[in-house]
Amino acid sequence: MHQLLKEIRHNPLLWLLVFVPVVFAAEKLAPGAPTLLFLLSILAIVPLAALLSHATESVAAKTGDSVGGLLNATLGNLTELVIALTALRAGEYMLVKASIAGAIVTNTLFVLGASFLLGGLKHHVQEYNKAGTRLQGGLLFLATVALLVPSAIAQADRAPGAAFTETLSLGIAVLLIIAYGLGMLFSLKTHREIFGSAEHAEGGESGEAPWPLGLALATLAGVTVLVALVSEVFVESVQEAAVAFGMTPAFVGFIVVALVGGAAEMGSAFSGARKNRLDLSVGIALGSASQIALFVAPVLVLLSYVMGPTPMTLEFWPGAVVMMLIATITASSVTNSGRSAWFVGVLLVMVYLIFAMTLYLLPPQVQ
Amino acid sequence: MHQLLKEIRHNPLLWLLVFVPVVFAAEKLAPGAPTLLFLLSILAIVPLAALLSHATESVAAKTGDSVGGLLNATLGNLTELVIALTALRAGEYMLVKASIAGAIVTNTLFVLGASFLLGGLKHHVQEYNKAGTRLQGGLLFLATVALLVPSAIAQADRAPGAAFTETLSLGIAVLLIIAYGLGMLFSLKTHREIFGSAEHAEGGESGEAPWPLGLALATLAGVTVLVALVSEVFVESVQEAAVAFGMTPAFVGFIVVALVGGAAEMGSAFSGARKNRLDLSVGIALGSASQIALFVAPVLVLLSYVMGPTPMTLEFWPGAVVMMLIATITASSVTNSGRSAWFVGVLLVMVYLIFAMTLYLLPPQVQ
Amino acid sequence: MHQLLKEIRHNPLLWLLVFVPVVFAAEKLAPGAPTLLFLLSILAIVPLAALLSHATESVAAKTGDSVGGLLNATLGNLTELVIALTALRAGEYMLVKASIAGAIVTNTLFVLGASFLLGGLKHHVQEYNKAGTRLQGGLLFLATVALLVPSAIAQADRAPGAAFTETLSLGIAVLLIIAYGLGMLFSLKTHREIFGSAEHAEGGESGEAPWPLGLALATLAGVTVLVALVSEVFVESVQEAAVAFGMTPAFVGFIVVALVGGAAEMGSAFSGARKNRLDLSVGIALGSASQIALFVAPVLVLLSYVMGPTPMTLEFWPGAVVMMLIATITASSVTNSGRSAWFVGVLLVMVYLIFAMTLYLLPPQVQ
Repeated sequence: MHQLLKEIRHNPLLWLLVFVPVVFAAEKLAPGAPTLLFLLSILAIVPLAALLSHATESVAAKTGDSVGGLLNATLGNLTELVIALTALRAGEYMLVKASIAGAIVTNTLFVLGASFLLGGLKHHVQEYNKAGTRLQGGLLFLATVALLVPSAIAQADRAPGAAFTETLSLGIAVLLIIAYGLGMLFSLKTHREIFGSAEHAEGGESGEAPWPLGLALATLAGVTVLVALVSEVFVESVQEAAVAFGMTPAFVGFIVVALVGGAAEMGSAFSGARKNRLDLSVGIALGSASQIALFVAPVLVLLSYVMGPTPMTLEFWPGAVVMMLIATITASSVTNSGRSAWFVGVLLVMVYLIFAMTLYLLPPQVQ
Repeated sequence: MHQLLKEIRHNPLLWLLVFVPVVFAAEKLAPGAPTLLFLLSILAIVPLAALLSHATESVAAKTGDSVGGLLNATLGNLTELVIALTALRAGEYMLVKASIAGAIVTNTLFVLGASFLLGGLKHHVQEYNKAGTRLQGGLLFLATVALLVPSAIAQADRAPGAAFTETLSLGIAVLLIIAYGLGMLFSLKTHREIFGSAEHAEGGESGEAPWPLGLALATLAGVTVLVALVSEVFVESVQEAAVAFGMTPAFVGFIVVALVGGAAEMGSAFSGARKNRLDLSVGIALGSASQIALFVAPVLVLLSYVMGPTPMTLEFWPGAVVMMLIATITASSVTNSGRSAWFVGVLLVMVYLIFAMTLYLLPPQVQ
Repeated sequence: MHQLLKEIRHNPLLWLLVFVPVVFAAEKLAPGAPTLLFLLSILAIVPLAALLSHATESVAAKTGDSVGGLLNATLGNLTELVIALTALRAGEYMLVKASIAGAIVTNTLFVLGASFLLGGLKHHVQEYNKAGTRLQGGLLFLATVALLVPSAIAQADRAPGAAFTETLSLGIAVLLIIAYGLGMLFSLKTHREIFGSAEHAEGGESGEAPWPLGLALATLAGVTVLVALVSEVFVESVQEAAVAFGMTPAFVGFIVVALVGGAAEMGSAFSGARKNRLDLSVGIALGSASQIALFVAPVLVLLSYVMGPTPMTLEFWPGAVVMMLIATITASSVTNSGRSAWFVGVLLVMVYLIFAMTLYLLPPQVQ
């Protein structure tokens, strides 16, 4: 606990934790001010996600770069999962789907691209673990393909009926979770040497000492509850706030939720890139995106049968399908070479900006 | 002949040959039982395809792995070609197209994936001939693209008329066959060293001695006739049987025909993978798929002018286009690295299962 | 000047320069003969493009293969840019867009494929600078993706309104030009060693001595003006001539303009391939296509606000989107290996022929 407080004192990002009580107070005092609640809840989620991330890093401290990256990605996605679950319970399926698609696109284009750019501005050419990355790129591509089959078929064959899409989505969700389990077995057990490059890990991340396991696990549990509570405020206020800011719901789910939920991981990815440990950055970006596709998305489909008003399908709106496909094909092909320079990062970020601009400009009714 | 009988005695799969006379007898005695005839004809085609395959292997015995794989694929596709020709004569163009698309998808996802999985369960990481595979992956991609142009244009530009699609399909069929001929020249003559890795071939496949050339050729001819006769029963019974089993015509053509027709090649591919000769498996899978796209499909288009009731086009239904494109992009990118482990196989097979599930669930009218 | 005349005497292609005055005379004497004017203007543009190209090569003579290739591509596209500008002023946006799409497809499929084929017929297997090519393939892919976002979104989401597409196209044009500027900084300054392979450059291209800088720059300026004047005749006559030849406007823009405008670069690319300097050929093909996507296309969008009757968008007709995507994915994946043989060239050219055949057969109204 002492260590937790010390950590908070030294990390300016964590000072934002003050917004956690503020958001709950504001909800009581000004329930009719969605724009304020929206902004406060974003400010509160960012430090909570950072705490979750540091707790995760402490657990991952003894493993290699890429396994650490994978763990980071799994539990880093806890924030996204909790936000999406809150939206699911509220029946906001558009927001849930936009945040799934947005997390995949943000990780594969923005996190990867900004890592390449930030790393490339400091290092002339950066090399990274080719075999592991290729495998991760392949996994991500296949996971995305699996996720997109219902949408692709529905579009290509002009909406063959809701019952078909529901059954197909359920079947695919089960297959994806099985694949996810086997993937864990693969990367953490049978072929962990491909993912781990332990010789790089020189102890604590970003100069911070890892926490003891007890504190780390307690923080994980407590902070998850706080994220869930703040997410509720966020989801309730987001629709009206979006209108006030002139943003479409797709833009909010796709860009804002993904950036807010992934803020902490991004920090790790970027600092890895600056330290010429691009393995870590690529592992976070690709691993996080795979995780969303293979785990978060199917879990949300399954939970919609229990928690949601109606079953949620895996059918995304057409523009999201195009963006997810482009993002994963791009990420697989760009990481294929195992080398990077700053301009590759520029181009990835540019495609992301183009997507963001498109979603911002898109009239709400067509989404 | 003696050798043929000995072979049959030692190979339990060939005991299924007993179903060849049974299917003809059943056709006479119970012409009104399509479900029975359907099952019997499947049981009869599998060993015939295996015989064709062993005869082919005997011819290919003196060549290297990949050239052997290519020959295997060419004549292994004889079964698919004969089945498709029977369906063509009956005017069942939906079944013909589904079996073309299905053979490409089954080879690139299922045969490749199951080979990686079966090989990977025995060997930690498997390496295979990178340069040859890349070239084959590239050929397959370009061949599929060429095959899909009429469908893509027709969809994108909203059906520009039957005459246009017919002329375009005919022109593409001619170009594909020219490309196929040049490809044979390339792989068997000018650049055979890229495809052959003769040092691996330690004589007979799966412990079986190769047959003398005379017996092999006689078996090829005789068994092809038998396959044609059984295919007729199969094609006549398949529609009604599919209804009885709750399967759509697309599912039957795409999955059942492709699995039945390719059973023998699959045997070779899987046994190659188990013996750590992944070159052979990848050669069979990619070579077979290329063969379908560059040779079987255009030959069927040309023959439809002679044998079919109306000219057949290369316009596939939209879902098939999506699946073929995903399958070949996946296969090219997955085989790009020249390395494999079991989980890559799991993911390929998973995508195949998702496609199969989709086709099984898809209501018949939308195909 | 003396050197320029000597050059013209020794290069039979430049004898076509006689058609430059002929086309102006014909315009005065036979303004009602569009077919004649169309043919004469094509015959006049080819040698002018060749002169532009040789002037460029003289400037590029002291740089390495790939930087020379890049410069070649930039100024080689001057012809396309001038033709497109003339069409833009005339409000022929269909022709402008078709020539943008056609230049990308022609460079990535035809120029690349014919270089592989011509080089491969002389050399068994050709290797080329892998790292540089991969990077260029990646840039091209990302540039095309950026260019296609408005079309993809518009199609997927069924035309969300003209205002949306206009604003989005303008925003993307600005981003593309920024990316282009950063790309120049990257390839010519911070990472020029990846692009240059100076050890290959053995002086003048195709046995021709480079011109002095003054002559080269004067030729660039004077010939650009002539190209602009001839382009005007070309654009005015093309529509009626196309009808006379039974060609659709899409075919003319996509295939004819791209081949005419790119004739000179093709000469350099093919002669590079024959001399086993495939770096140069691939640099011209990929560099030229990237240039069109990152520079020519956005410049045309911006200039349409100044010179055109209405703002031009980046929304292409669906068939063009499919072809551009297939072409760039193909080029990136084919050049990924850094090795080539003649059959790869055959397949690339075959896909190009299939596209050309499709556009030729496509009824005009659906484009």
